[in-house]
Amino acid sequence: MKATNIGVIGCGYWGPNLLRNFAENEGAQLRWICDIDEDRLTSMSRRYPMAQTTADYRVLVSDPALDAVAVVTPVATHFIIAKELLRAGKHVLLEKPFTATAREAEELIDLAERNGRTLMVDHTFIYTGAVRKMKEIVSRGELGDLLYFDSVRINLGLFQRDINVLWDLAPHDLSIMDYLIERQPQAISALGSSHIERGIENIAYLVMLFPDEFIAHFHFNWLAPVKIRRTMIAGSGKMILYDDIEPTEKVRVYDKGVTANRVSDREAAYQTLVSYRTGDVWAPKLDSTEALRYVVKEFLDSIREARKPLTDGYAGLRVVRLLEAAQQSMKNGGQAVILADTAQATPA
Amino acid sequence: MKATNIGVIGCGYWGPNLLRNFAENEGAQLRWICDIDEDRLTSMSRRYPMAQTTADYRVLVSDPALDAVAVVTPVATHFIIAKELLRAGKHVLLEKPFTATAREAEELIDLAERNGRTLMVDHTFIYTGAVRKMKEIVSRGELGDLLYFDSVRINLGLFQRDINVLWDLAPHDLSIMDYLIERQPQAISALGSSHIERGIENIAYLVMLFPDEFIAHFHFNWLAPVKIRRTMIAGSGKMILYDDIEPTEKVRVYDKGVTANRVSDREAAYQTLVSYRTGDVWAPKLDSTEALRYVVKEFLDSIREARKPLTDGYAGLRVVRLLEAAQQSMKNGGQAVILADTAQATPA
Amino acid sequence: MKATNIGVIGCGYWGPNLLRNFAENEGAQLRWICDIDEDRLTSMSRRYPMAQTTADYRVLVSDPALDAVAVVTPVATHFIIAKELLRAGKHVLLEKPFTATAREAEELIDLAERNGRTLMVDHTFIYTGAVRKMKEIVSRGELGDLLYFDSVRINLGLFQRDINVLWDLAPHDLSIMDYLIERQPQAISALGSSHIERGIENIAYLVMLFPDEFIAHFHFNWLAPVKIRRTMIAGSGKMILYDDIEPTEKVRVYDKGVTANRVSDREAAYQTLVSYRTGDVWAPKLDSTEALRYVVKEFLDSIREARKPLTDGYAGLRVVRLLEAAQQSMKNGGQAVILADTAQATPA
Amino acid sequence: MKATNIGVIGCGYWGPNLLRNFAENEGAQLRWICDIDEDRLTSMSRRYPMAQTTADYRVLVSDPALDAVAVVTPVATHFIIAKELLRAGKHVLLEKPFTATAREAEELIDLAERNGRTLMVDHTFIYTGAVRKMKEIVSRGELGDLLYFDSVRINLGLFQRDINVLWDLAPHDLSIMDYLIERQPQAISALGSSHIERGIENIAYLVMLFPDEFIAHFHFNWLAPVKIRRTMIAGSGKMILYDDIEPTEKVRVYDKGVTANRVSDREAAYQTLVSYRTGDVWAPKLDSTEALRYVVKEFLDSIREARKPLTDGYAGLRVVRLLEAAQQSMKNGGQAVILADTAQATPA
Repeated sequence: MKATNIGVIGCGYWGPNLLRNFAENEGAQLRWICDIDEDRLTSMSRRYPMAQTTADYRVLVSDPALDAVAVVTPVATHFIIAKELLRAGKHVLLEKPFTATAREAEELIDLAERNGRTLMVDHTFIYTGAVRKMKEIVSRGELGDLLYFDSVRINLGLFQRDINVLWDLAPHDLSIMDYLIERQPQAISALGSSHIERGIENIAYLVMLFPDEFIAHFHFNWLAPVKIRRTMIAGSGKMILYDDIEPTEKVRVYDKGVTANRVSDREAAYQTLVSYRTGDVWAPKLDSTEALRYVVKEFLDSIREARKPLTDGYAGLRVVRLLEAAQQSMKNGGQAVILADTAQATPA
Repeated sequence: MKATNIGVIGCGYWGPNLLRNFAENEGAQLRWICDIDEDRLTSMSRRYPMAQTTADYRVLVSDPALDAVAVVTPVATHFIIAKELLRAGKHVLLEKPFTATAREAEELIDLAERNGRTLMVDHTFIYTGAVRKMKEIVSRGELGDLLYFDSVRINLGLFQRDINVLWDLAPHDLSIMDYLIERQPQAISALGSSHIERGIENIAYLVMLFPDEFIAHFHFNWLAPVKIRRTMIAGSGKMILYDDIEPTEKVRVYDKGVTANRVSDREAAYQTLVSYRTGDVWAPKLDSTEALRYVVKEFLDSIREARKPLTDGYAGLRVVRLLEAAQQSMKNGGQAVILADTAQATPA
Repeated sequence: MKATNIGVIGCGYWGPNLLRNFAENEGAQLRWICDIDEDRLTSMSRRYPMAQTTADYRVLVSDPALDAVAVVTPVATHFIIAKELLRAGKHVLLEKPFTATAREAEELIDLAERNGRTLMVDHTFIYTGAVRKMKEIVSRGELGDLLYFDSVRINLGLFQRDINVLWDLAPHDLSIMDYLIERQPQAISALGSSHIERGIENIAYLVMLFPDEFIAHFHFNWLAPVKIRRTMIAGSGKMILYDDIEPTEKVRVYDKGVTANRVSDREAAYQTLVSYRTGDVWAPKLDSTEALRYVVKEFLDSIREARKPLTDGYAGLRVVRLLEAAQQSMKNGGQAVILADTAQATPA
Repeated sequence: MKATNIGVIGCGYWGPNLLRNFAENEGAQLRWICDIDEDRLTSMSRRYPMAQTTADYRVLVSDPALDAVAVVTPVATHFIIAKELLRAGKHVLLEKPFTATAREAEELIDLAERNGRTLMVDHTFIYTGAVRKMKEIVSRGELGDLLYFDSVRINLGLFQRDINVLWDLAPHDLSIMDYLIERQPQAISALGSSHIERGIENIAYLVMLFPDEFIAHFHFNWLAPVKIRRTMIAGSGKMILYDDIEPTEKVRVYDKGVTANRVSDREAAYQTLVSYRTGDVWAPKLDSTEALRYVVKEFLDSIREARKPLTDGYAGLRVVRLLEAAQQSMKNGGQAVILADTAQATPA
């Protein structure tokens, strides 16, 4: 089996992690490392002497021997770089958020499909042991009817200069919800505040409404006294608490709930009797393998097998659509944005 | 000092706690216990044989020897009962939520002022050691400029039949915010969902916007796998985490924050440099006296001293206004409700 | 079914809880309340007007209509009071610790057996949902071979004047171990220290050795900055963590362990290969009924059915033997006390 | 300033961390990397191409250009390697535990003193922000009279083949206690059990007695369901809880305690009145710099300044003495080992 020749563009915070995982995967051959910062290039070159370095990503675009490229640059540059790479016939792995607009995402998807190339988004959390275990649980219907999804991701965090807290943190939770729930909201409403730098929200709240009573809510915050990463997924049967701060028992399944029985009543025709149910709690063992290892493996496998990756361009597009709508709502003081029928966001 | 003759109307869940605290206060003389349920009356009578019992609250209204009454009935009945009592010259302590509408609250306030009677709302949390300590900290400006207020009060809780989760749980957090922050929002937006009983929301999210970048958010939930009662109050100087589930260290003050300095930059005119600050954490000792003891004391003291109680009718009104606006927003799918200038909600 | 006529001697800290539970049990008829403190008697009499009161326990001894008595007095007085009651043909429930010496315990057991009367010790924890659930788990062999029992019970606690921290707190954990493990140690060693009052240890450590490699250890402390009540029971198959401070998930079963396989080795004849195993964690639902309710029920049932109660005199004796040995070791600077064959501590 | 030429012997679990810290310190020049495993040498060589590699530590002994060596080998080999290095005039940093016997430690100390060379032990925890902060607090007398030291270090841990849990884990806590308390026990008693491999205890309990009522206790365990690293240091004034698992608030100072006042009493001559005190809790900000960075710095500084390092040979010796005594007690079924006057364990 011939190794896939890989290039990585962008060696800032996240790029080195991708480099390391490509280096450790036997199916990949690191061929190019690209960054506009000379020092980073030198440092990465020392670690991966087998790869060539360049400050110009177009060198990768025009290298016929290069098979695939991971783009780990600021989101504003994703579209133009990915477009050139896809046109040149490269497979592309894009860092999250996938693109700056849904329009860009759609164009990249189209380009990849026409060229028969793999286009994947690095929704890393989807590849964690915790999320994969929750997917198992949700898929076998253990939660019953889904009632709500509530996520809190707050910290005294790294302030970004180019994007707000929404574009920084929401891709994690939106991609997790998209993967687990497999439903698209009808309307989205968001509010935030900019305490530090005008125009860059450091706190944001999102609510999503669905055709039925299912509701999703998100709290993102760069300016919190404590670090919390907690998601609740409630169903009529069971409920999940996913606490990513916990070192081992990240996922707990609560056999808890409420049952509403409509019974006849002497006085008023019918009445609802609500009864509580509380049972065991179960914390399944989780695969603790680094998620990025599976991201890299899925990228390489999907190229080799010429199939869609788990987190394909449509997954990226769906999250960007939600981000765009949320951003728009936030600009309009929380006014709900009605989402168009998003059936087209899933492959035919 | 002559003891104040007290009556208590309503002996359901909360009433017995008020009865006990009145019985233990030397300045009060329990004179009447009133409930429509015969069994409860018998049971309370055994415990407090000094008091007379009745199923008809009008007996209290017309007893000239009765000085003051605590009304611990469903909110829908607060207005009519309190009105009759005030007209008959009784001092009144109303359970929270104060009234079912702001209109009712205003009428009661007016009535009490014209009759020179004490009208108080039992915003119990205001009298806890935790909230009083936070008031001290906020009052001496230790937090710096206030940035946000974020509160979560969730549980697998007792479903109410007559009111939704908002009217059930929000009075706690809204009264706490009102007391600590002393600011009124400009707009309020709320969304919720009814999973168990049609039309009775069991989960609700509220956001409040203020004239500046201060923002407040609330999450109320009767259907959560775990019990959380946590409030963050962030300032530019310090931040408070108030965790009411903690047995002892309920209030933690974090000497943490972010500073934005605008500095000149060679290339781009000006740039903001964000610097983090993280210091000690301090959990002050709290008075652990039962809050209701202070509620009862404040009611009796304000009667005796002919002064406004700490949680007077205006405090009740301000919370009811927020509840009404939130309810209206929730009915309109989260559309923001602009709040009128609420200066009138504070006494002249 | 005729109700059992009950007397309670001692209305200090714990007595009122027993009184309440007897009052709520339909099979019991409170006949006597006894205490040397006049105020307590008055207070209890108000709550339970159906019972007669006396400051002299001998009044109970000589009342022919009295069937059974709970003795909730200081341990030094247990023996003399219980002896007189048993001689007078009363059934006796003794508070923990059972007696001040093993000698006393043996004499009471003998007396009860000869008179055909129920003699029971109030080892309350045995009747909690947590301990009963652990008993189930241990009994069905889920833990595999038992390896160790480790218990920590510390707090900034109520200092006792008449007994040290060992006699105050150890009965809880020793009775739990006795019940769950059903094994008697061969040797016991204890060390403590008296920081506040000379001769009254406020901190104590116990170790117990058994015929095999099973080991048990206990830490008791009245002078700790935090409250901890945590027991680990490790087996070759699974391990239990019992945290009594947790509001709901008090018992967690860890599917964790180590396996040692002796394998042949090229170089050195044989070698042990140790392999880890880590699996799911399970927190079973627990019965949250007040334990004392079951204590009272078991006392009444065993009288009615003329059978040994679950926590009979032998259970009391076994715990007192351990306390005596531990006390002796502590006096001798931790020198191990070898325990005689304790087969006689279980009924024939 | 000329850089100190450094060699590191042993690249197993801990060695690479020392290598990294030496590489990052500008005062050090990595000259030799030594390990008997070829693969490890190759891997380290790739990372630190400036250093030469060898499988024979004697090459380092005989290199006249080499100034100082860190020995990170199994404890059984420490003595022989360090002796040769010191004789050859090298400065030596020894991994913990310092040596296999106190005898060896004394000989190395003597050798280093006669040759005027730095001999240091890598008691890493002493250099953490948490322990240094606790040292500050204890040093300024904030705790009052010290009452006890209680440490628990348990986990489902890496089983060692050559040493038991005592020699593996106790050096951490014994060195911390030695540093903070600066007192030597009079007697030490230990008990353990070997559940996995005969003769290698995987659980051990230690108690140390001191001339007064101060007492120290330790629990070490490789076979626990959960990871706990918690130390309590109680004083008559305040108490410290040091929880090393906590990500940020590792040290908490509790303003809690008990006061015993002897007062005259009408009836019995004198009586002790015990009164509780409970106040604020304070979690000081801690320096989160990697401790090993300071270890390496202290080693280099003490060489350059020709002074004793903070954790010198005597610090290593004191810990080894306690380990030896504990091991002896454990072999004799917990019999207390009386420690000789250890004044000699501190430099004149």
